[in-house]
Amino acid sequence: MKKLINKPEDFTKESLQGMILAHSDIIKINYEPTFIYRADAPQEGKVGIISGGGSGHEPLHVGFVGRGMLDAACPGEVFTSPTPDQMLAAAKKIDSSAGILYIVKNYSGDVMNFEMAVEFAHLEGINIQSIIIDDDVAVKDSLYTQGRRGVGTTVLAEKICGAAAEKGYSLQQLKELCKKVNQNGRSMGIALTSCTVPAKGTPTFILGDNEVELGIGIHGEPGRERVTIKSGDEITEILANAIIYDTPYQRPLREWDQAQGKWQDVELLNKPWQKGDRLLAYVNSMGGTPISELYLIYRKLAEICHREGLEIVRNLIGPYMTSLEMQGCSITLLKLDEEMLRLWDEPVKTASLRWGV
Amino acid sequence: MKKLINKPEDFTKESLQGMILAHSDIIKINYEPTFIYRADAPQEGKVGIISGGGSGHEPLHVGFVGRGMLDAACPGEVFTSPTPDQMLAAAKKIDSSAGILYIVKNYSGDVMNFEMAVEFAHLEGINIQSIIIDDDVAVKDSLYTQGRRGVGTTVLAEKICGAAAEKGYSLQQLKELCKKVNQNGRSMGIALTSCTVPAKGTPTFILGDNEVELGIGIHGEPGRERVTIKSGDEITEILANAIIYDTPYQRPLREWDQAQGKWQDVELLNKPWQKGDRLLAYVNSMGGTPISELYLIYRKLAEICHREGLEIVRNLIGPYMTSLEMQGCSITLLKLDEEMLRLWDEPVKTASLRWGV
Repeated sequence: MKKLINKPEDFTKESLQGMILAHSDIIKINYEPTFIYRADAPQEGKVGIISGGGSGHEPLHVGFVGRGMLDAACPGEVFTSPTPDQMLAAAKKIDSSAGILYIVKNYSGDVMNFEMAVEFAHLEGINIQSIIIDDDVAVKDSLYTQGRRGVGTTVLAEKICGAAAEKGYSLQQLKELCKKVNQNGRSMGIALTSCTVPAKGTPTFILGDNEVELGIGIHGEPGRERVTIKSGDEITEILANAIIYDTPYQRPLREWDQAQGKWQDVELLNKPWQKGDRLLAYVNSMGGTPISELYLIYRKLAEICHREGLEIVRNLIGPYMTSLEMQGCSITLLKLDEEMLRLWDEPVKTASLRWGV
Repeated sequence: MKKLINKPEDFTKESLQGMILAHSDIIKINYEPTFIYRADAPQEGKVGIISGGGSGHEPLHVGFVGRGMLDAACPGEVFTSPTPDQMLAAAKKIDSSAGILYIVKNYSGDVMNFEMAVEFAHLEGINIQSIIIDDDVAVKDSLYTQGRRGVGTTVLAEKICGAAAEKGYSLQQLKELCKKVNQNGRSMGIALTSCTVPAKGTPTFILGDNEVELGIGIHGEPGRERVTIKSGDEITEILANAIIYDTPYQRPLREWDQAQGKWQDVELLNKPWQKGDRLLAYVNSMGGTPISELYLIYRKLAEICHREGLEIVRNLIGPYMTSLEMQGCSITLLKLDEEMLRLWDEPVKTASLRWGV
């Protein structure tokens, strides 16, 4: 295992400490339990937005805490869910009585722990609502997940809902908005190489010298199939077509029913994409792929969208949701309406996403 | 060779095309010869700033073209100098009679070709001055370089001089400023793995499973030594100490003497660092190292600087000057004065560095 780390068990903590030292004007850290929060929290009268999940996907989520995005992030150990006490403590820290939205990626451990945190929070009088992001079109169920996994759309939901919270949206409005973003966002990824969890010390999976895994999960979960490596253009065709021709209404979306005390499947807001739809195209590095290759993928993606009559009006290209040093990329397409587009353009100031300020 | 590319010979062109498609509000491209320029060029009355060099280091330099940074960038093929006709054509495109500053990384091919371009430009009545960046403390001479190589300080010089040009600095003032940035910036890098130039198809060099190369060049040139992999903290100590205790006046700095028609060594402006000096700390990924590891390096770097009485007042952390998919990092420390600090904070809007707008 060749990494720029010290003791494997200190990796997450020491990486976080570096982020806090580098961005002390934007974020602060709480230990025991660990969570990162806006240096200017709580924001009086504003709904708080919290996300979290296993570490190893940096800059997600810690790099997205700040004005116009998240109020707090709860990092677990590498590829391990954060605990309910982290989530509860973060909620208490940032709550300003306007309520809190949890944005949760659909992994069984994350969902279960956030669910417990919601229950604890309600007992303490904090009003929390959750939205689960489940945008990965690659597989229906997966190694750590019932239903679709939550991937790239999470970043976009955090940005868009973060802007809306800043604008004074109520908790109920934010919940509807986050649901809309999730239902209009779809993703799929590919791995060229595996990655190594520091505490384990050996690769999560093995790929042959000429093999790639299509539809990989961000923890190295199996995707749709292993194939011989193809050209960048061919890979982009496979990912883009899987996303564009996905049947989104097959995807159940769940929300917490407070009255009944359980998760409920809910009606879907989205429709299949049509010619003329406007998209945000997000090409993401899995961590070890340089951005020169991401732009080559974007080139083909733009050509495909044009061919399909879809208009890319915004883009995001870079390593925003990684799997340690894994080589590969993912594509996320989000169908935008006026509201989402306007909110995307609002100022944001976080460690890893910044414009307008 | 596992990469997200098509034909190796199309890699540079197709990656550039993706950047242009993604950032058409900021940059445009000219073919035959190839250069990228600000979409709003020429800027009347403003000195133009141009940089360039081999491709494979993205986002350098194309990702830094835009308001508050470069006016144009000339990308060569992977790890290959751009040609004088690229540089001359870029100069003609952006010249608004206020003159042009070339920022050149010290590699013999780059220097020679920029020198030729300067001669051609003078014949055409364009006033161009060059500054060579030679900030790599690792080795005195290298595979492709006489003197020290030009690395991370280039990014900082482009940002600081770009802001100054926007503020109306004259060509002579910009030249002095760029010289000052170079003389106060020092870098050193480490490689954990090699990288593969697409057209070659095999790794540039071979490192053993437990070996790392200290002082690596951005084209895989040999560094100071190969050693068994060490902890992140130990590696940071080695890099930081090499930088902090470097003897900067050993470094010759050259500038173009127009009257005599040749490069001249010039007097040095810098002094050894002292307690209380204020620094910009830049931790850079070589391309394949995830930012979680960069932050772990930053954590130790901040501790070392504190111990040495040096104050980090700004930082930049991420993949800004890469070597394809090479795993590893480099550290650059730039001693700031009030002028550099103020210019660093000015707004910038490029594909890869953006704040304030």
